[in-house]
Amino acid sequence: MTQTVEPAVEPAIEPAIEPATEPPTEPPTSTEPSGGEGQRVATQWLERFESALRARDVRAATDCFATTSFWRDLVSFTWNLVTVEDRSGVADLLEHNLERTDPTGFTTAEPADLADGVVTAWIEFETAVGRGRGLLRLVEEEGEWRAWTLLTTLHELKGHEEPRGLRRPPGAEHGARKDRTTWAERRQQEAESLGSTEQPAVLVVGGGQGGIALGARLRQLGVPSLVIDKHPRPGDQWRSRYKSLCLHDPVWYDHLPYLKFPDNWPVFAPKDKIADWLESYTKVMEVPYWSSTVATSASWSEETQEWTVEIEREGTPLTLRPKQLVLATGMSGKPNLPSFPGQDVFRGDQHHSSAHPGPDAYAGKKVVVVGSNNSAFDICGALWEHGADVTMVQRSSTHIVKSGSLMEHGLGDLYSERALEAGVTTEKADLIFASLPYRIMHEFQIPAYQAMAEDDKDFYERLERAGFRHDWGDDGSGLFMKYLRRGSGYYIDVGAAELVADGEVKLAHGQVDHLTEDSVVLEDGTELPADLVVYATGYGSMNGWAADLISQEVADRVGKVWGLGSDTTKDPGPWEGEQRNMWKPTQQPGLWFHGGNLHQSRHYSLYLALQLKARHEGLDTPVYALQEVHHLS
Amino acid sequence: MTQTVEPAVEPAIEPAIEPATEPPTEPPTSTEPSGGEGQRVATQWLERFESALRARDVRAATDCFATTSFWRDLVSFTWNLVTVEDRSGVADLLEHNLERTDPTGFTTAEPADLADGVVTAWIEFETAVGRGRGLLRLVEEEGEWRAWTLLTTLHELKGHEEPRGLRRPPGAEHGARKDRTTWAERRQQEAESLGSTEQPAVLVVGGGQGGIALGARLRQLGVPSLVIDKHPRPGDQWRSRYKSLCLHDPVWYDHLPYLKFPDNWPVFAPKDKIADWLESYTKVMEVPYWSSTVATSASWSEETQEWTVEIEREGTPLTLRPKQLVLATGMSGKPNLPSFPGQDVFRGDQHHSSAHPGPDAYAGKKVVVVGSNNSAFDICGALWEHGADVTMVQRSSTHIVKSGSLMEHGLGDLYSERALEAGVTTEKADLIFASLPYRIMHEFQIPAYQAMAEDDKDFYERLERAGFRHDWGDDGSGLFMKYLRRGSGYYIDVGAAELVADGEVKLAHGQVDHLTEDSVVLEDGTELPADLVVYATGYGSMNGWAADLISQEVADRVGKVWGLGSDTTKDPGPWEGEQRNMWKPTQQPGLWFHGGNLHQSRHYSLYLALQLKARHEGLDTPVYALQEVHHLS
Repeated sequence: MTQTVEPAVEPAIEPAIEPATEPPTEPPTSTEPSGGEGQRVATQWLERFESALRARDVRAATDCFATTSFWRDLVSFTWNLVTVEDRSGVADLLEHNLERTDPTGFTTAEPADLADGVVTAWIEFETAVGRGRGLLRLVEEEGEWRAWTLLTTLHELKGHEEPRGLRRPPGAEHGARKDRTTWAERRQQEAESLGSTEQPAVLVVGGGQGGIALGARLRQLGVPSLVIDKHPRPGDQWRSRYKSLCLHDPVWYDHLPYLKFPDNWPVFAPKDKIADWLESYTKVMEVPYWSSTVATSASWSEETQEWTVEIEREGTPLTLRPKQLVLATGMSGKPNLPSFPGQDVFRGDQHHSSAHPGPDAYAGKKVVVVGSNNSAFDICGALWEHGADVTMVQRSSTHIVKSGSLMEHGLGDLYSERALEAGVTTEKADLIFASLPYRIMHEFQIPAYQAMAEDDKDFYERLERAGFRHDWGDDGSGLFMKYLRRGSGYYIDVGAAELVADGEVKLAHGQVDHLTEDSVVLEDGTELPADLVVYATGYGSMNGWAADLISQEVADRVGKVWGLGSDTTKDPGPWEGEQRNMWKPTQQPGLWFHGGNLHQSRHYSLYLALQLKARHEGLDTPVYALQEVHHLS
Repeated sequence: MTQTVEPAVEPAIEPAIEPATEPPTEPPTSTEPSGGEGQRVATQWLERFESALRARDVRAATDCFATTSFWRDLVSFTWNLVTVEDRSGVADLLEHNLERTDPTGFTTAEPADLADGVVTAWIEFETAVGRGRGLLRLVEEEGEWRAWTLLTTLHELKGHEEPRGLRRPPGAEHGARKDRTTWAERRQQEAESLGSTEQPAVLVVGGGQGGIALGARLRQLGVPSLVIDKHPRPGDQWRSRYKSLCLHDPVWYDHLPYLKFPDNWPVFAPKDKIADWLESYTKVMEVPYWSSTVATSASWSEETQEWTVEIEREGTPLTLRPKQLVLATGMSGKPNLPSFPGQDVFRGDQHHSSAHPGPDAYAGKKVVVVGSNNSAFDICGALWEHGADVTMVQRSSTHIVKSGSLMEHGLGDLYSERALEAGVTTEKADLIFASLPYRIMHEFQIPAYQAMAEDDKDFYERLERAGFRHDWGDDGSGLFMKYLRRGSGYYIDVGAAELVADGEVKLAHGQVDHLTEDSVVLEDGTELPADLVVYATGYGSMNGWAADLISQEVADRVGKVWGLGSDTTKDPGPWEGEQRNMWKPTQQPGLWFHGGNLHQSRHYSLYLALQLKARHEGLDTPVYALQEVHHLS
C-alpha cells in the first residue's frame, strides 16, 4: 500500500507488418487510377451500409460484411476498443450500439483504391456525439462487394473539437481592458490552484512518453488533468537508464501527438536526446506535470465515484481526488525478481535489470546476467564494452532480429521516408496499422520474418553455432506478435547479439539452482563465478501496479493486462481480439491502463483521452463488451 | 569599446502582399489544368535559357528576359543577395558570374501554371558547387515568352548536404565497441572544448530568434559556431519585455527553421510562450548557446583574417577568435535616446522604450510617452490598462493598420490556414514572397492597403476626429514597405489605437522643447505633467552595434544597414534593390548582419548560413556587386 509506483519506461518494439490491402491469400500487385472502379464500389457499399443503419436494419447491415470479416471499433460505436468477427459479431455489435450511436454521413475521404481484388477506402462518418474516421476493405464474395475489414474510430466529439488549425486559440487578446491577465499569469494561477483549490479530473500516474502524450491530449481537450512522476525532470525515465541506450524504434514510428520530430532527428534517438525532447515537449504542450512526486495509495469510493489518492510531492504529503485514475507506469509492469537459494549469502552486487546502474563500476569484474531478452542483451553489451567478463544465462529460447532488417521488412511500408514519400503520413500509417485485425495479424507477419531469416541467414547460423537457442515465435510470426502477446521473449539486435555469436559474451544454459558467496550455480552444476548478478528476468502484468497502489482486490478485479489471448506461450486464451485492459474501460470504474511504445502512446492516447473527455463532460458512455477477466496476472 | 551589445529583439511586422503571378497591371483570375500550355512554355524557356548559358552566350541568355524584368539571386550565382533589372542588369550579372557558376539542369519542380498571361514555374537547377531552387514568371512580349521575374536561390552545397530526411543521422551506433562515446558524452566534450581548445568558426552575437535560427542552421551544416547572449536564458529577450506583449505576426509567418509550431499554437503567441519555445528550440536543435555572455570588444586582423572578440561569460573574461562575426543584435539597432534640456532636472522616471520595465509601478501616475509608433502604442496601452493617466506625444504622422485586416488583406494568401489548404507551404510562401522584386513590391501593396482603408473606414475616421495624424506611407504602400524601407513609422493595432481614438489615451502634438521638474513642455508651450517620461523615439541603424563593439571606423566602412534606397522618408537613395547589408557580405571582411522578424530570421538565415558554410569549407566565393556605402547611418 505504501509501495511507490515506479514509472518504468521501456524501449519499445516495432511492428513488422505489411499494410494489408489484400485478402489474406493474395498480395496486391497493381493499383488503378484513383476515382475509378474502386471509388464506385466503395461509394455503393457505403450507401448500402448507411441505408441499412438508418433503417436500423441489423440484418441488412450485417449482409454488407463478408462471411469472414472483422470490424474493429475504437470508441466510435462501442465506447470501447473492440474487434468483432464475422457476421455474427457484426450483428451483436449493431444490436447493442446502433440505436444510440445513430451513425450517418459515411463518405470516402479520398478516392478509393482497387488492387488485386480488394477495394481500400479511407472513410469518414458521424455519430450522435462525434465524428469518426476509418478504413474499409471490400472483397468480392458471391458476386457482391462485402466488407472484409472495417475500422471505425472516434476522431473528435461534437462541440468539443480541439483548438487546432482553424480553431487554434488567438493568443493575443486584442483590445484594451483593465482586468487583463496574461498567459504567464494564467499559467501561474493554474499551477497554484491545481491540486489545492482545483482537483484534477484525471490523475495520470507515470510521466514517461505514455503519460506525457496522454497529458498533452487531455490538455488540448480541456480536461483538468495532472501527470505525476517520481523523477526530478520529465525525460528522466530515459536519462536514468544505461548510458549507451538508444531507442530501438526508428524516428518515423516515434512521433508524439501534435509535434513531430524535426526531419534532422536521428533514426534511433539516444536516450538523453529523447529525454530532452520529452522535457521540452511537456513544457511546450503545457502538460500539467509534477516531478518528484509519488503516489503512495489510492482508493475508490463507490459513493462519491471518485478516487482518493495519497501522494508525496517533493516529500510533502497531499491528497488528490480525481474522478479518473490512469496508470501509465510502464507496460512491462513490475519487475519479476526471482528467488534463489543463496541470494542472501552472495557477496557481490545483485539486482533486477530495471535497477542496473550501468556498466561503469564493473570494468574487469565477472558478471552473470540471468536472462536472454532485450534487457539482458543491452546490459551484456554495455558491460562488455566497459571491459567486464560477461556470461549470459539463457533459460529459454529467444527471438532475435537485426534492427536494420526489422526496419526494412517490418516497418518500411508504413513508417519511413519511403512511406512519407508515398503519402503515408504518420496519421495514416497509424490507422492502416490499427485496421489490421489482431486475429490475422500473424499471417502478415510471417512472410516478413521469413524474409529476415533469409537476409540474415549467416547471422542466425553463427548464433546457432555459438549455442544460442533461437526461435521465431510459436507460429513463426516474429517479434511484433511476441510484443503484443506477451511483451517479452525477443531482442532487437543493435550489436550485442554479435557478441554472443562471436563468443565475446559467454553463454550458459539452464535454470539457476542457487547462488554461493561468489558464484551462480545452474541446475546442471555449472558454476559461474560472479561479482555481479543481473536478473534480467522480466516484468509482471501491469495490474501489479494496481495491487501496489490500490489493493490486490482491485488488481484481481481488473485481471491481467496486455496480451491478446492468443493461446501461445505466456498469452493464455481465450481470444480477446484486443489487448487486455489497455486504453479501455476495466472492471474497476475509473481505472485505466495506458502505456506501450511511442507509437502506441501516440495513437491510443487519442482514444483514451476521448473516453476520459466524454466522461468529464458527462456524456452517456455505455460500454459494449466490457473486458472480462480470465487471468489474474 | 567596452559598451556591451544588447540583443534587442523586436516584435516584427508582416508583409502585406499579394502573391504576384501576374504582370503588374493584370491580376490573375483563372488557372489552367496543370501540365498544359504553361508547362510547355516553361520547359521551352528553360531549355532555351540553359542552352544559352551552356554556350556562355550572354546575349542569347539576356534575350530570354523581357524588356522590363527582374532577376533576384540569393547566393546561387552571385555569392550575394542581388536583384538586377532589365536586360542590361541580366547581362552584367551573367558576364561576371556565368563561367564560374556553370549553371545546368534547369527543370520545373512541378507543373507550371498559366494564368492571365503569366506562366509561373517552380524551378530547380544546379551550379558548379550547389543545387538551387527558384521561381520563374514568364510574360509574352513581341510574340515570345520572356522572363518577367526570375528568382534563383542556393538551396544546398554539393557534398555538404544537410543531414535531414534520408540523410538524417543514425543516432544509435549499432555494433559493440569498447571505445564508444555516447551522444551525451560528445555533447559534454563539445561544451567543454568550445571557446577553449576549439574556436568557433562563426560567432553570433545576439541570441534572439535571429541568432537562434542562424545557430540552428550552422549546426545542421556542421559549421563550428557559438551564439552568445547577455540574458540568463534563451527567450529572455521576449520574457523581459512588457507583460501583455504578444507577437504582432501570426503563427503561420513565424515558424523557425526545421521545427514548425504545432497546429495548436496560438495565432499571436504571448511573449512568455514564444520565449519558452525559443528556449526549447535552442536545446532541441543543439544550438551552441552561451547565456549571460556579453561581447565587450572586437577587432579584425587583416593578417590572420580572423576576429579577436573579448567576451565576458557569466562575468569571466574570455577571448574568442572566430573567422566570421555575425551581429544579430536586433534590426532596430541601438536605441535613439533624445537629448532635451531639463532631462537632468526632471524628478520622475525617464527611459527609452526599450528599457521600459512595464506598467506595474505606474498605476495612478501621469505618464508622457514621446512617440507614436509601435512601441509607443504598446506601452500606452499597457499603462492605460494598469490605470495610469497616459498622454502620447505625436511628433510626426504614423501609419496604423488593424491586426485582423492585415492578416486578411496582407498575409492571408501566403501565410494562413487558407494558404496551407491551397498547398502554399511555409517554404513555398517564403520563396513566392522572395520572388517579388522590391522595386515593384509597393505596387502590389497599395491595393491591399486601399482595401484595409475601406474595410476600417470608421476606425480611421475616429482616429482622425481624435486628432491623430495618420498616413499610409509616402506612396500609399502601407506598413510592410515602411518596415523594409525604414523599419519604423507604423503600428499594428491590437487595441491601443482604439484608446487614442476614444480619447482614453490623450494625444498631444509637436516636438518636445524641454522638461521641467515634473512635466514635459512642447514647443507650442503645452505643458504635460509627468511622473514618467517614456522616449519611444526609435532606434538607429544596426551599424551602430558595430561602432560600439568594433569601432566607428568599421561602422562607417559598412555604412547604413537596412532599407532599400527607395528615396522615401528615412530611406534615402540611391536604389539598392536589396536591403542594405543584411544577410550578405559587407565592406568589412568577416562581418555580417542578421536580424528582422521571425519570417526573415527563418528564411534569410538559410542564405547567410550557406555563405558562412562555403567560407568555412574554403570554397571560392567571389562576391558580385558588393554592397556600396552611400550613407553612414
